[in-house]
Amino acid sequence: MSIRIGILGYGNLGRGVECAIKHNPDMELVGVFTRRAPETVKILTETAKVYSVDDAEKMKDQIDVMILCGGSATDLPEQTPKYAQWFNVVDSFDTHKRIPEHFANVDKAASENGHVGIISVGWDPGMFSLNRMYANAILTNGKDYTFWGKGVSQGHSDAIRRIKGVKDGKQYTIPVEAALEAVRSGKNPELTTREKHTRECFVVAEEGADLARIENEIKTMPNYFDEYDTTVHFISEEELKRDHSGIPHGGFVIRTGKTGWNDENSHVIEYSLKLDSNPEFTSSVIVAYARAAYRMNQEGQKGCKTVFDVAPAYLSALSGEELRKHLL
Amino acid sequence: MSIRIGILGYGNLGRGVECAIKHNPDMELVGVFTRRAPETVKILTETAKVYSVDDAEKMKDQIDVMILCGGSATDLPEQTPKYAQWFNVVDSFDTHKRIPEHFANVDKAASENGHVGIISVGWDPGMFSLNRMYANAILTNGKDYTFWGKGVSQGHSDAIRRIKGVKDGKQYTIPVEAALEAVRSGKNPELTTREKHTRECFVVAEEGADLARIENEIKTMPNYFDEYDTTVHFISEEELKRDHSGIPHGGFVIRTGKTGWNDENSHVIEYSLKLDSNPEFTSSVIVAYARAAYRMNQEGQKGCKTVFDVAPAYLSALSGEELRKHLL
Repeated sequence: MSIRIGILGYGNLGRGVECAIKHNPDMELVGVFTRRAPETVKILTETAKVYSVDDAEKMKDQIDVMILCGGSATDLPEQTPKYAQWFNVVDSFDTHKRIPEHFANVDKAASENGHVGIISVGWDPGMFSLNRMYANAILTNGKDYTFWGKGVSQGHSDAIRRIKGVKDGKQYTIPVEAALEAVRSGKNPELTTREKHTRECFVVAEEGADLARIENEIKTMPNYFDEYDTTVHFISEEELKRDHSGIPHGGFVIRTGKTGWNDENSHVIEYSLKLDSNPEFTSSVIVAYARAAYRMNQEGQKGCKTVFDVAPAYLSALSGEELRKHLL
Repeated sequence: MSIRIGILGYGNLGRGVECAIKHNPDMELVGVFTRRAPETVKILTETAKVYSVDDAEKMKDQIDVMILCGGSATDLPEQTPKYAQWFNVVDSFDTHKRIPEHFANVDKAASENGHVGIISVGWDPGMFSLNRMYANAILTNGKDYTFWGKGVSQGHSDAIRRIKGVKDGKQYTIPVEAALEAVRSGKNPELTTREKHTRECFVVAEEGADLARIENEIKTMPNYFDEYDTTVHFISEEELKRDHSGIPHGGFVIRTGKTGWNDENSHVIEYSLKLDSNPEFTSSVIVAYARAAYRMNQEGQKGCKTVFDVAPAYLSALSGEELRKHLL
C-alpha cells in the first residue's frame, strides 16, 4: 500500500513536492490543501483533489503524512504544531533563531497526539546541516565553512524590487573561487563576509529611472548588500525573462581537520550541491523525509525530529537487505 | 563518565583509533588487545594497558565498546561475531560480497547477547555508502558515480612488490579529471574502467633487474592493471622513503539526477574526501560510530547495524539541543 501524502500550500515548494511524489512510486498524493478557493487551484496530479485547508482535519484518516509548504515567517510556526495534532508532518522551517521554540511546539503537539513531526528539512537547513554534523563528529579538531551559490536569493531579489524605479530584478549569490580554494588547501583561513561571496544583480528599471541612484541604493543597502562586492547590470524585461527565470542554487559545506597523535595529518571533507531548481530539490529531500516520518510512526515513534534524529535507512524505499547489497 | 574503549589489533588502523580517542574527550582507551606477546607492543596512551587477546573476555565489564582493527579477509569474519558475545563492537569489514553473511553472523551473536555491533564502518564502505544512499533517496531518478583517489592502494602496491626484481613499490589510483568533469556536467556519461581512473607506480628495482620486463609485467597484470592506463616510474629507495611514505587517499561520490513534472531540471550532489592518512580518517569515523554503538545499546537496542541504521545524532558528543542550535 502506498504512503498517502497531503500537501498544504501550493506555491513553488508545494508544486515541487507534487513532482517529487511522481518520482516515488511507493507514495501517492491524496490532496492539496489551500487557503485559496479550491476551484481556483489547478494541480498536475489527475488522481488527487484540491481541498480547502478548513477540510484538512476531516481527512486525518486518509492521509499518512501532511507536508507543510508554507513560509517560515508566519505560516509554519502556527501550522506545523496545529497539523501535528492530526497528522505526521514534515516542514522546511528555516528561521534559525526560532528553531528551539518551533521544535518545542511541534514536539508537544506531535507527542501528545502520537505523531511524528520532522522539521527544518531541505538542503540548508537539511542536507548541509547533516554534512556539517557528520564531518564534525569525524574530524573533532577542525573548522567548518559553508558557501552558498551560485544561486538566486529570493530575499535579496525582493529587496531590489522594493527600490523606487525598479520594475523587476534578480540577485545571484556567488561564492568566491579563491576563498573556496584557500579552504580546500587546509590553510584554515579566517574569511570576512566580503571574501566569501559576491552578489550580482540583474535589474529591470522603469522608464526614465535614475540608474545611478538605483545602483547606489542597491550597493549600499544595509545587511543585504553593503558588506559585499556587488555588481549591478541593467537589462531589459525580455532579457530577464529569457535568461533569469530559473531558481538555481547550491553551495558547499567544507570541513578541514587534523588527526594523528600530534595532529600531523590534514583532511578535507566537502559536500556540494548544484541545483537547477532550489524548490524542486528541497521538495525531493522533504518527500524522502515524509517516508521516514511515516515509517518511524508505524514503528511507534512520536514527537519532533530533525534530520539529525532520522536513521538514513528510513529515507529509502529499499529494504535494509537491498541497501546493504547495492549501496554499502 | 567516559565511554570505555578497547582496541583489538594494533596495526595502522589500531594506532589510528588510539589517536582518534585522544581527540574525543568523552572517550577513554582502556586497553589494546594483541595476538603478539603483550610486552612487545608499545602503545602511545600512558593510561592504557596492552593485553593478550586471550584476556579480552575477562575484561567484558570494563569495556563499553571493543573496536576490531583486524583485516577483512580472515580476521573480522571470525572476530566480530566472537567479540559481539561480550562487547558492543565496531568493525571496518569491507569485503563487499560477504557483507550479507557477515551481517547475519554478527546480528545473531549481538542479538543473543544484548549488544550492538556496527559493521563496515569507515569511508568506503562507510561515509561514501551513506552519501550514495542519501543521494539516491533524494534524486530517485538519477545515476551514481564513485571515483577513488588520488591515493595509495595497498592491494596494488602489494601486487607490484610480488613481481620478481622489485624491492619495493607504491601504487597511486588517480581519478581522470575529464571523466569527473563530464559527470559533474550532468551528461550522465557511461564510463569504462579505463576512462575513470589511471594508475601510477613508483618502483624500487633490485640491482641489475630487467626494468623493461618489470614495467611490462605491471602494465599487463590481469585484474590489477591491464584494464587501466598505467605509468611506471623507477626511483631509488631513498626517493620512495622521502616522497611516498604517506598513506593518502580520498575520492568522490557524485549523483546526478532529474526533477520536475517532465524531468526538466538537473541536479548534482557531490561528496568528496581528501585524506592525508587513510587509516587515521577511517579510525576517526569508527570512533564516532563507537559512541553510537554505546548509546544505542544504553537505550536498549541490540543486533547488527550498518551506517544506514544509525541516526546521525548518535555520532556526536553534543546534545540534541546543542546540535539544533549550532549545526542545523
